[in-house]
Amino acid sequence: MKVLIVFAHPEPRSQSLNHSLLKVAINELEKLGHEVKTSDLYAMNWKSNLDADDFPLFDKKHDRLKVNPESARAFKEGKLTDAVLEEQAKLKWADFLILQFPLWWYTIPAIMKGWVERVFSYGFAYAVNISKDKPHGDRYGEGLFQGKRAMLLVTIGGPETGYSETGINGDIFDILFPIQHGILFTPGYQVLEPYIIWRANRFPEESFPKAADDLRQRLRDLETDEPIAFRLQNGGDYDKRTLVMKPEAFDPKVRGLRIHVKK
Amino acid sequence: MKVLIVFAHPEPRSQSLNHSLLKVAINELEKLGHEVKTSDLYAMNWKSNLDADDFPLFDKKHDRLKVNPESARAFKEGKLTDAVLEEQAKLKWADFLILQFPLWWYTIPAIMKGWVERVFSYGFAYAVNISKDKPHGDRYGEGLFQGKRAMLLVTIGGPETGYSETGINGDIFDILFPIQHGILFTPGYQVLEPYIIWRANRFPEESFPKAADDLRQRLRDLETDEPIAFRLQNGGDYDKRTLVMKPEAFDPKVRGLRIHVKK
Repeated sequence: MKVLIVFAHPEPRSQSLNHSLLKVAINELEKLGHEVKTSDLYAMNWKSNLDADDFPLFDKKHDRLKVNPESARAFKEGKLTDAVLEEQAKLKWADFLILQFPLWWYTIPAIMKGWVERVFSYGFAYAVNISKDKPHGDRYGEGLFQGKRAMLLVTIGGPETGYSETGINGDIFDILFPIQHGILFTPGYQVLEPYIIWRANRFPEESFPKAADDLRQRLRDLETDEPIAFRLQNGGDYDKRTLVMKPEAFDPKVRGLRIHVKK
Repeated sequence: MKVLIVFAHPEPRSQSLNHSLLKVAINELEKLGHEVKTSDLYAMNWKSNLDADDFPLFDKKHDRLKVNPESARAFKEGKLTDAVLEEQAKLKWADFLILQFPLWWYTIPAIMKGWVERVFSYGFAYAVNISKDKPHGDRYGEGLFQGKRAMLLVTIGGPETGYSETGINGDIFDILFPIQHGILFTPGYQVLEPYIIWRANRFPEESFPKAADDLRQRLRDLETDEPIAFRLQNGGDYDKRTLVMKPEAFDPKVRGLRIHVKK
């Protein structure tokens, strides 16, 4: 497989837990015969702020910046910035996408959020094939990345108990939902269970070999692991216009975001 | 009251829906006799990427960037950047915080996420007063901003039905939980129900006066509105060490992130 790892960690040297895990991942993936490309966002000094400079056709003097139409026009006419075109080419190249990051304030770091905002253009990662029959287009299981797989590789400072079903931080499934479902499943990726390191802020060196072995095991199963069974937008479970799930589609005993996973 | 509005929208001119709402908010708040300060992040060309440059004491040549300890040291010794110190001063000044933004990829724009990451320092907005009795410190309802209030002012491209309890985008309460609970309630803010504009991408001009009136009404009630009843971390509902909610504290019929709201 072709694997793209998008990596966000500010440590400029390679001794951090995240860099060590990245090295383990790259080595194991190559050992398994996969091709690996990495987008190390901090090393690339990635520009995070989506703004008028992302749209070379945009006339700052006279136009009003409406992000969606501007993004649509730039993508359609191939007039995005080189930095964005390069990342889009990597995404088209890759069969498997790994987003690796420390969980900061309950989501991805700003630099990775800015990568999503700038690279996931209108017509590329959202608002794809909108039609009478599909008023919301190919989205949530369909779209450009349909048939590809993705996984989060996350380090979290707190203990796992705080992210359990009744933990104060919020069930980790719910906390990651906007990323796994909202960012990855939207353009079509099948999303595997995340690989998570807990208590990363106080991670003892002697625990690293075991963590590395667990990660290697996960990477060996990339092609065969069962993805999270998120429901297709256009698969019949949701009303195509209102996007509300049909009553007959889910078990009323299930509540919260887990209803979007098919049992 | 003293009100700080942190605003994130890339439209450089003031005709956008978000800018129009911002103007309505500022005018109404001042008419009500409140003092208003605004942090217009795009206008400030806010640096989003948290990195070594945020820590003037950090020795790039010899040190390893460990964000938490570095942030703790910089805050403790008052050696943060001027940009960050200025925002922290505004937060200490304000009784009420409004975060205004378009919902992009199910969360705040990267530029606002970068504001949180850089301004919410260790010891300032998290890891406050950690002690034997409070192993996780003053957090979730306690902390520097205890007694202050906050509210989200959000524009969302999609229809409200998609964000209903069984809507495909995810229940808006759950989607906003990492922001309202994870970012605002963590340092102690009481969080009011959000003000949301739906279908913002196709918002008809003729609907603006009604939206502006609704916003003005919400702003008149800032001081009296009931906040979302998130449970205190140290209020007895959660085990102080594991952070897991005590079985007797919640109704087993309630599922998902809503269990963190006291009925």
